[in-house]
Amino acid sequence: MRPVSIIGIGSTPFSKLEGKGPVDLAVEASIQALGDAEIHPKKIEALYLGNFTSGILTGQEILGPLVANRLGMRAIPSIKTEGACSSGTLAFKEGVLAVASGVHELVLTVGVEKMTSANTSKVTAALASALDQSKEGSCGLTFPGVFAMMARRHMHEFGTTREQIAMVSIKNRKNGVKNPLAQFRAEVTMEKILGAKPVTEPFVLYDCCPISDGAAAAIICPTEMARKLSSKSISILSCEVSIGNASIDMMSDMVSFPATVEAAKKAFSTAGLSTKDINFVELHDCFTIAEIVDSEDLGFFEKGEGGLALEKGLTQINGKLPINPSGGLLSKGHPVGATGLGQIYEVCKQLRGEHPNQLDNPKIGLAHNLGGTGAVCAITILSRNL
Amino acid sequence: MRPVSIIGIGSTPFSKLEGKGPVDLAVEASIQALGDAEIHPKKIEALYLGNFTSGILTGQEILGPLVANRLGMRAIPSIKTEGACSSGTLAFKEGVLAVASGVHELVLTVGVEKMTSANTSKVTAALASALDQSKEGSCGLTFPGVFAMMARRHMHEFGTTREQIAMVSIKNRKNGVKNPLAQFRAEVTMEKILGAKPVTEPFVLYDCCPISDGAAAAIICPTEMARKLSSKSISILSCEVSIGNASIDMMSDMVSFPATVEAAKKAFSTAGLSTKDINFVELHDCFTIAEIVDSEDLGFFEKGEGGLALEKGLTQINGKLPINPSGGLLSKGHPVGATGLGQIYEVCKQLRGEHPNQLDNPKIGLAHNLGGTGAVCAITILSRNL
Repeated sequence: MRPVSIIGIGSTPFSKLEGKGPVDLAVEASIQALGDAEIHPKKIEALYLGNFTSGILTGQEILGPLVANRLGMRAIPSIKTEGACSSGTLAFKEGVLAVASGVHELVLTVGVEKMTSANTSKVTAALASALDQSKEGSCGLTFPGVFAMMARRHMHEFGTTREQIAMVSIKNRKNGVKNPLAQFRAEVTMEKILGAKPVTEPFVLYDCCPISDGAAAAIICPTEMARKLSSKSISILSCEVSIGNASIDMMSDMVSFPATVEAAKKAFSTAGLSTKDINFVELHDCFTIAEIVDSEDLGFFEKGEGGLALEKGLTQINGKLPINPSGGLLSKGHPVGATGLGQIYEVCKQLRGEHPNQLDNPKIGLAHNLGGTGAVCAITILSRNL
Repeated sequence: MRPVSIIGIGSTPFSKLEGKGPVDLAVEASIQALGDAEIHPKKIEALYLGNFTSGILTGQEILGPLVANRLGMRAIPSIKTEGACSSGTLAFKEGVLAVASGVHELVLTVGVEKMTSANTSKVTAALASALDQSKEGSCGLTFPGVFAMMARRHMHEFGTTREQIAMVSIKNRKNGVKNPLAQFRAEVTMEKILGAKPVTEPFVLYDCCPISDGAAAAIICPTEMARKLSSKSISILSCEVSIGNASIDMMSDMVSFPATVEAAKKAFSTAGLSTKDINFVELHDCFTIAEIVDSEDLGFFEKGEGGLALEKGLTQINGKLPINPSGGLLSKGHPVGATGLGQIYEVCKQLRGEHPNQLDNPKIGLAHNLGGTGAVCAITILSRNL
């Protein structure tokens, strides 16, 4: 397996993007990535497209061939990958494999989701297809409920406070203000959160990421080629995937996702790194509590200490380990299939020194993308191409 | 890239399988494949699952993690692949890549579809998600219409007769009689076909594959390992994918699928073989005309001569090039995401000498799996492991 790099990235804004379907959005992000890499579409040798709900919400599948046709690509292979909210990074992972193995030289990976054209109840049902329908799904459980239970349990077990949980939203909303791609660009206060109408206890609206449209893309090539073609390429140190529990009745507790723990173990091992080497993280804060749980599962903080770390400001942009300097899913929005590649886009922007919330000279960043009730997790570690 | 082989195969019957959801079916086929290979589920290092309509028709996604959990697998990577009717072979292809590249030793690939729990109009709409919704789909076109147009054009251009087209159904239905996995096990006569009520001119019911449930699985490992573990392993000479036209308005004619032509070119080139080396074929006869078009696109007959070849009996079980000795999609049924792996299952059974319609000592077989309006095609060439 040869070393591989990212030589081009692109992203639409994440928001309610009216008049644009999933193909339009994926094409838009892809054109940006191709432009960024200065690669003609006909040079692309394979297209992996991550998407979750396009069949259910828009009645449109075979997105890969439609995007490739629109871009005027050659008769290349194209595959859609699905793994609920981690669908985007799964496309990236297969692209990494195709290039690292020597099968292809230039692979386009793109994640996309079009959600806002359906009403909320249809979107909620579509998202619930990532729950085990034979168990929780058929009982009416939806994702806000799953994560609210986790929040309650985390508070019970470790004394995590409602205020600490709210701090995730306050921090990420603040980070999102400067991000032109973010759906929400307004700060939120503790007072506003604590006074808001509950969605599902203990969550209010500000604890939940919104329904969004969007697409993000990355072009992968061998590192040797990347060095020749671009001065701003990003090295892919690892991209690893693990399944966990696809049903919550299989979880040994409600305060951890084994899929994250396992994927992190593999990702650090492949990269030959430990948590200490990571300068910043984009992680899957679909709900406020998720950021706390994820930051612990990834090994950055002891289990139960994620809330405290937040309170101490360790994960602020100017903290020891900035988490979600992009604003995360809570600010940026969560166009499900696009999210993983959106995180990779944000990490690349930071490593290239081009981020609206630019950190001071970061060298290595980690992206964490979780699907379902921890059914599957994909973790990517990226560094500057030195 | 190292040589890879299939060491275990499994398949449910393809039919209306009441009381069984997509996870049940995929688990059933996987357990068979694991049993066939005598491999414990905990030895499997990755799971690729092909599926098309599960989100739309059953409200259940994340099938890979659900299947892996049920089988008691470890914390492995799992990815669902989608490419309309070629979804199954796309899973197989990614499995081949994962093993050939040296990343994994033992990979389970499974294709599954649960269709009969929804009513026909919902299934028709789900299948139409493989059409370009912004063009044909929104005009009300469905797949019987697409293929009926192709039949009309093939008749017009090449003088292909209605009788020749019907012969596909007569042959494949006859082949299906002995296949215990087939949904239809009764022969059909020319008289019955020509006298039947039209579905969409020139097609009657016997020209169209049915709505089906089913799953099929194959376990992939390095050839070196396969030789040690099994006396009946099958060598994967190539598995290649190409996109074509995802909208029919992009087709230069209505008598050929460029995706098949391109995928065949790659598959023969990778395997170092030509059409002459192929002893039999399982191809994508979703409609009668498809078999004629596919047999030409694959290069076995000149364009326009597929009907004549059929009339001459060349593609019968005892002909020069048996096509669909399993009964094909017209007899076996077409549980979409399962079909590609179902074809691979049938080719393996022939090469192992275990087929209910056993050919005389076949050495090399080809499986052809087409998605959408030729949006994507996946071709696999398999041989005995000598």
